[in-house]
Amino acid sequence: MKTFDKAIKADIIKLTKEKEKIKRKRRKKENMKLVFIGAGMMASSMSMPANENGHEIRLVGSPLDDDIIKEGKETAYHNTLKRQLNKNTKFYYLSELDEALEGADAVICGVSSFGVDWMLDEIYPKIDRKLPIISVTKGMVNDEEGNLLTYPEYWEMKLKEKGIDRKICAVGGPCTSYELADHDDSLVCYCGEDIDTVNFFKEIFETDYYHISTSTDVRAVELSVALKNAYALAVTLAVGLAEKREGIGAVHYNSQAALFTQATKEMTGLLEYVNGNDNQIELGVGDLYVTVFGGRTRKIGTLLGRGLSFDEAMEELKGVTLESVVISKRMGEAITVLDKNGKIDKEEYPLLMHIYDIIENGAEVNIPWKKFNTEDIK
Amino acid sequence: MKTFDKAIKADIIKLTKEKEKIKRKRRKKENMKLVFIGAGMMASSMSMPANENGHEIRLVGSPLDDDIIKEGKETAYHNTLKRQLNKNTKFYYLSELDEALEGADAVICGVSSFGVDWMLDEIYPKIDRKLPIISVTKGMVNDEEGNLLTYPEYWEMKLKEKGIDRKICAVGGPCTSYELADHDDSLVCYCGEDIDTVNFFKEIFETDYYHISTSTDVRAVELSVALKNAYALAVTLAVGLAEKREGIGAVHYNSQAALFTQATKEMTGLLEYVNGNDNQIELGVGDLYVTVFGGRTRKIGTLLGRGLSFDEAMEELKGVTLESVVISKRMGEAITVLDKNGKIDKEEYPLLMHIYDIIENGAEVNIPWKKFNTEDIK
Repeated sequence: MKTFDKAIKADIIKLTKEKEKIKRKRRKKENMKLVFIGAGMMASSMSMPANENGHEIRLVGSPLDDDIIKEGKETAYHNTLKRQLNKNTKFYYLSELDEALEGADAVICGVSSFGVDWMLDEIYPKIDRKLPIISVTKGMVNDEEGNLLTYPEYWEMKLKEKGIDRKICAVGGPCTSYELADHDDSLVCYCGEDIDTVNFFKEIFETDYYHISTSTDVRAVELSVALKNAYALAVTLAVGLAEKREGIGAVHYNSQAALFTQATKEMTGLLEYVNGNDNQIELGVGDLYVTVFGGRTRKIGTLLGRGLSFDEAMEELKGVTLESVVISKRMGEAITVLDKNGKIDKEEYPLLMHIYDIIENGAEVNIPWKKFNTEDIK
Repeated sequence: MKTFDKAIKADIIKLTKEKEKIKRKRRKKENMKLVFIGAGMMASSMSMPANENGHEIRLVGSPLDDDIIKEGKETAYHNTLKRQLNKNTKFYYLSELDEALEGADAVICGVSSFGVDWMLDEIYPKIDRKLPIISVTKGMVNDEEGNLLTYPEYWEMKLKEKGIDRKICAVGGPCTSYELADHDDSLVCYCGEDIDTVNFFKEIFETDYYHISTSTDVRAVELSVALKNAYALAVTLAVGLAEKREGIGAVHYNSQAALFTQATKEMTGLLEYVNGNDNQIELGVGDLYVTVFGGRTRKIGTLLGRGLSFDEAMEELKGVTLESVVISKRMGEAITVLDKNGKIDKEEYPLLMHIYDIIENGAEVNIPWKKFNTEDIK
């Protein structure tokens, strides 16, 4: 009987200790000091769920964000996101980076693909090597041999050359900043080589409307969501083509769906080539869906479809960051090289190569429909 | 020299013969007499490219199509498609079926899934066994053991029981009738076990705006496009949920994209279970895209999302054919049985099972977001 009591007592002690351990862990994740580098729309909207979870938000502007920081410091209203952030959100000019990093628990890289090298040269070296980092930057880099690298891979490689050994997590999946800020249910995937670090970020950010899957397959997640920008431009050509035929405002979905089908097929093929499987293709497909309906990529696709040349369309969008153009060019270049080296057959990517031709050579929009036809014999 | 001349002459004769053979073949495919069973919107819009290719169109009404046929005989205007068909289109009441079938070269089954058994019992036995048949009916049938059959498989099996041995081709892919009628570029896949018969139909129907891939993997094509009706209902719940929160007309895409992502994942899983691979998933994804924006499935999804019960939503849509409800129920039943028999884990299909719960048990819409979260470790 005594032995039994003892066993129960030991169990209770063990359970209590475990509970305390969990509590300590939880406590540790309260009031985390989160430093966002780049105060653009995506990073700033992501700060909102973290803020609601009780964490301290420190938004550090890039050299392009001075207006945002000025207004933020005064009213916590975000100029470009056009949303009121919580008054306790802290805003910092880039010159105040050191102050922002003081006592930080984690860093969120919020720059667009145009800030990738700036992040590499100016920011990463200044961040404590023990601090976990997650990036929202979407895109890929290609080299002269057609190799395709995700941004985490690119940064890790380049930092290693500087003698800095660090891992960078990333965020992928369909999530536009405005709608995240408005608490629309959003499903994303946080990825990184170390699942504990990924889960650390998940715990900080997840709310009842911001849903986070996790993955250690960084390449799959990042490639899948990088490609969607190129293909969103492609799908929205159909929006403009319908308008060219029937007048502005005309809406047709068959042709959009046809391009969506082809886009899914080509994205699957590229994912399989680069990563050896089509893991996480659904993330890219979902992200393609949301991108087709949003902002600048839809705008340029529509303008091109209506009959504007690439230069004319760019003229209309003057000054606007176009991730879709960057990724389309890089993918087009990579596929051209890989095709020459016999590693890939560019005939399997007629939609992407047409986009590349439009951007690179000023080709007219002329969807290669018959190249999409396949004969699939079991 | 003479030998050389002889060789040239032989070559010329050979070439001429081959040319004539091709011409004969072409001629054979001119003025084909095509009998459409069911004069609904899909079949009638499909008749338009065939008509433009010079073929004779014979639209035979189902018992539900009397109004369409009456108007058609007078003016060739299609009542429900709301488009003017070519004046040379021939309309037949069902009672005139024999006349329509006289000298026919091919038959197109244009009934909805509600006409599947009618087709089986009343029509197929009357059709000459040598005539090629292609069907536009989308959907699946399940049996008590959870087996899922495509309609071509179902018909072939049932006809075999009647001693009739015949193969049926099918059409899959994203293509709404209105937009096909308006010449919007559309990409579909014709499938059938015999690729020559499939190519025969492709040659008859393909135009410069109606693009046709071909496949012998009937199961892959048909399952992929059948599932999209269930999942289109699911994705459009998000349309209604946003309106419930922010008022009618409010639009959010993050939550639609989240459900689109999950839908793609579940469709891939089901395709892999039933067919052993995810071939043709892009067709289903494209078809999901077009269905989310069209007609009745979007309407019921939106109504449910706004907070109406399934019975209330059905009340609002009184009298309307709902393929999406049929397929959702059948898939839900099949997965329930397969889960019980240990063949499938229904926890992997939380979105479909939620739709099933809404339809079957009158459950309230309550998207199981956290069940979509996955932890993917390499």
